[in-house]
Amino acid sequence: MSACGHEKDLISIDEAIQSILNTAKKLSTETIFVKNSLSRYLSAPVYSPVNLPGFDQSAVDGYALCTSHADAQHQSYVLMGEIRAGVASDLALQEGQAIRIFTGGKLPQGTTTIARQEIVEVVSDTQIRITDPLMAHTDIRRRGEELAEGQSLAEAGQFINIGSLAALSMAGVQTISVFRQPKVAVVITGDEIALDQNSLSEAQVFDANGPLLKAWFQQNAIQAEIIHVSDQSQAVTACFEQLKSKYDLIITTGGVSVGDYDFVRPSSFDAGFEQIFWKVKQKPGKPLYFAQYQNPEHHCYLLGLPGNPAAVYVCMQVYGKLLIDALQGQQPKTDTWFTAKLTHGMKEDKRERFIRMQASIVKGELKVSSLAKQQSHMLSNLMQANCLVRIPAEVKPEAEMLVSGLFI
Amino acid sequence: MSACGHEKDLISIDEAIQSILNTAKKLSTETIFVKNSLSRYLSAPVYSPVNLPGFDQSAVDGYALCTSHADAQHQSYVLMGEIRAGVASDLALQEGQAIRIFTGGKLPQGTTTIARQEIVEVVSDTQIRITDPLMAHTDIRRRGEELAEGQSLAEAGQFINIGSLAALSMAGVQTISVFRQPKVAVVITGDEIALDQNSLSEAQVFDANGPLLKAWFQQNAIQAEIIHVSDQSQAVTACFEQLKSKYDLIITTGGVSVGDYDFVRPSSFDAGFEQIFWKVKQKPGKPLYFAQYQNPEHHCYLLGLPGNPAAVYVCMQVYGKLLIDALQGQQPKTDTWFTAKLTHGMKEDKRERFIRMQASIVKGELKVSSLAKQQSHMLSNLMQANCLVRIPAEVKPEAEMLVSGLFI
Repeated sequence: MSACGHEKDLISIDEAIQSILNTAKKLSTETIFVKNSLSRYLSAPVYSPVNLPGFDQSAVDGYALCTSHADAQHQSYVLMGEIRAGVASDLALQEGQAIRIFTGGKLPQGTTTIARQEIVEVVSDTQIRITDPLMAHTDIRRRGEELAEGQSLAEAGQFINIGSLAALSMAGVQTISVFRQPKVAVVITGDEIALDQNSLSEAQVFDANGPLLKAWFQQNAIQAEIIHVSDQSQAVTACFEQLKSKYDLIITTGGVSVGDYDFVRPSSFDAGFEQIFWKVKQKPGKPLYFAQYQNPEHHCYLLGLPGNPAAVYVCMQVYGKLLIDALQGQQPKTDTWFTAKLTHGMKEDKRERFIRMQASIVKGELKVSSLAKQQSHMLSNLMQANCLVRIPAEVKPEAEMLVSGLFI
Repeated sequence: MSACGHEKDLISIDEAIQSILNTAKKLSTETIFVKNSLSRYLSAPVYSPVNLPGFDQSAVDGYALCTSHADAQHQSYVLMGEIRAGVASDLALQEGQAIRIFTGGKLPQGTTTIARQEIVEVVSDTQIRITDPLMAHTDIRRRGEELAEGQSLAEAGQFINIGSLAALSMAGVQTISVFRQPKVAVVITGDEIALDQNSLSEAQVFDANGPLLKAWFQQNAIQAEIIHVSDQSQAVTACFEQLKSKYDLIITTGGVSVGDYDFVRPSSFDAGFEQIFWKVKQKPGKPLYFAQYQNPEHHCYLLGLPGNPAAVYVCMQVYGKLLIDALQGQQPKTDTWFTAKLTHGMKEDKRERFIRMQASIVKGELKVSSLAKQQSHMLSNLMQANCLVRIPAEVKPEAEMLVSGLFI
């Protein structure tokens, strides 16, 4: 008789997380163009190759002035010419002279301050007058004031999002060293899953896990091949044999429980994988399985998700993300999981749970409310859910209790 | 003299937001495959085409039983056969009979309860015995218990993320009606921007705005063509003339202030656009410009972002997102902007500001802390920033003040 119904063989969620972190080895690094680097992780720090700004420049549309007066107001200046942004100029200023300049324009030598055009009266083609108080060094962006050449711009591990990509681009960084993304194969098992959605036989169900994982990888900007395999021991083993050398990560759905047709675990052994853990004291996702195959040249991980779609969703958001990040050199951050107050009491459970909830912020306080239809074969509350909340085992959660959650 | 330096002609941030919402007309709708629908918005509600589950089924690996006893414990049953998940079967149960069944397997007629395999002793090939208490109707998933055929599954306006895509897939929904995404052209102006990053002339800067907006659209799963145009009136006008009939939205960067080479606004007029608003009482992004071109067949919006990269970033996250969502039928939600407590006091300013900050959650309380280097030509703090916070004009922000922010 299997021990699956018993809780004693199960590891805790924290143990499963730690086990993944202990097992996952960083992938190699590669150099890529910054413009193609969205959603990647830096494998080395980046130092600014230039000063930012690269030269002293005007912060406004106006006039560069040269004056020894503390306040330039009511002074008149002889207009010597114009400097456009982006155009190099040999013009230089001497006491009492001005040059028309535009935002980003390189300051002419001799500039002591900039008068924005709103405080300048154009007296004639060759003369201007300053109408308002104006101090020295006004509206000048100094060379290197944001970043000096060689100064740290980004640390190793930095996630490349829109903002960091733009900041790297502004510093003229063209290529960066990042961790390789894992090559991923997703293996959907389960003969009950209709392969053709147009011809659902009696006793079959539509495929939710394939589209779910395809969307997950699309959202996370990682290539993943989706493969369906039938519930036959040899077919599953042959599949793993084929994939283990070509991929860094195999994600399976279904077939990891203790039913007579749950071939993922035994087939993984037949294909040379060794178990790291199996079965986690959690709801949903108890049969979660983690294994690895190693040879001197290659390492392949296998994350065996249960077959129920809600378990697939939860385990992918929690463990799949953790593993894929760890392969790219990332340790979880202290703020990966938020803390929030429950708005209501709940029943207790002997297993720790991931509950699909709705988080909302009320006057700076983060509150989470559970949604109906939490069973592991149900997904429809994901239309409303925006977070997963961890509810500890064997405590009765009360309203206002502080819980830990993950935005989804 | 221009009024740009004066604040009286400026509209408020709230007025600019409202103006965009009042102006943007919903794009047409189209029918697409669910599997390709990530990041789209539903234009019509979806009703479940099937019952979920589609048939009464087992929630566990175990045995379907037929018994009139209230508790099946200590009863023995005659084993009649096996039903696998996904395999239709004509087997039926009568009093005292059992059938081996697996998770998701369709219940045989006559089933009164399911015994999970952990509480079943297999006495012989033809006989089993139940070892633990077992009530009627245990571990059965009833047809339609999650959703009945025809019941509402998703509302119009639903954003398709990983979870909602999976939930639609599980219900066998293959195609959905969504709003068309805008066809977008991004026009980068500014002769100071080096087109070739390998040959930066004196007085030139690297292009941050092009990569920033390319990444923004990539992240938001929207196609956008990036075009560079020189600071010449005819070139800018010709560009708008070419784009206005082919695109739903033109986003420009630079050239919207009052400098002599700020051609975006006058060129847009020459190309038949009418101004909706210009200049917002905000920092950064004061010269923000919004216009539209309409003819009986086509509507094209023009969002003129300033040239400074931080203004581009902020205005895109706030106004660009708002406009693109509005074109897809979305009104801002009450939780689009969060509320959080400032961790520190700040200087006041005569204009409302969007400050790049770091949000963190401490015991369920959302707190935001400002970052250095907020000037509009600086981007490097986007390595750390995870939100934009609105600081009202002409109030001195104190620590613990409740402010409004947007995750980025």
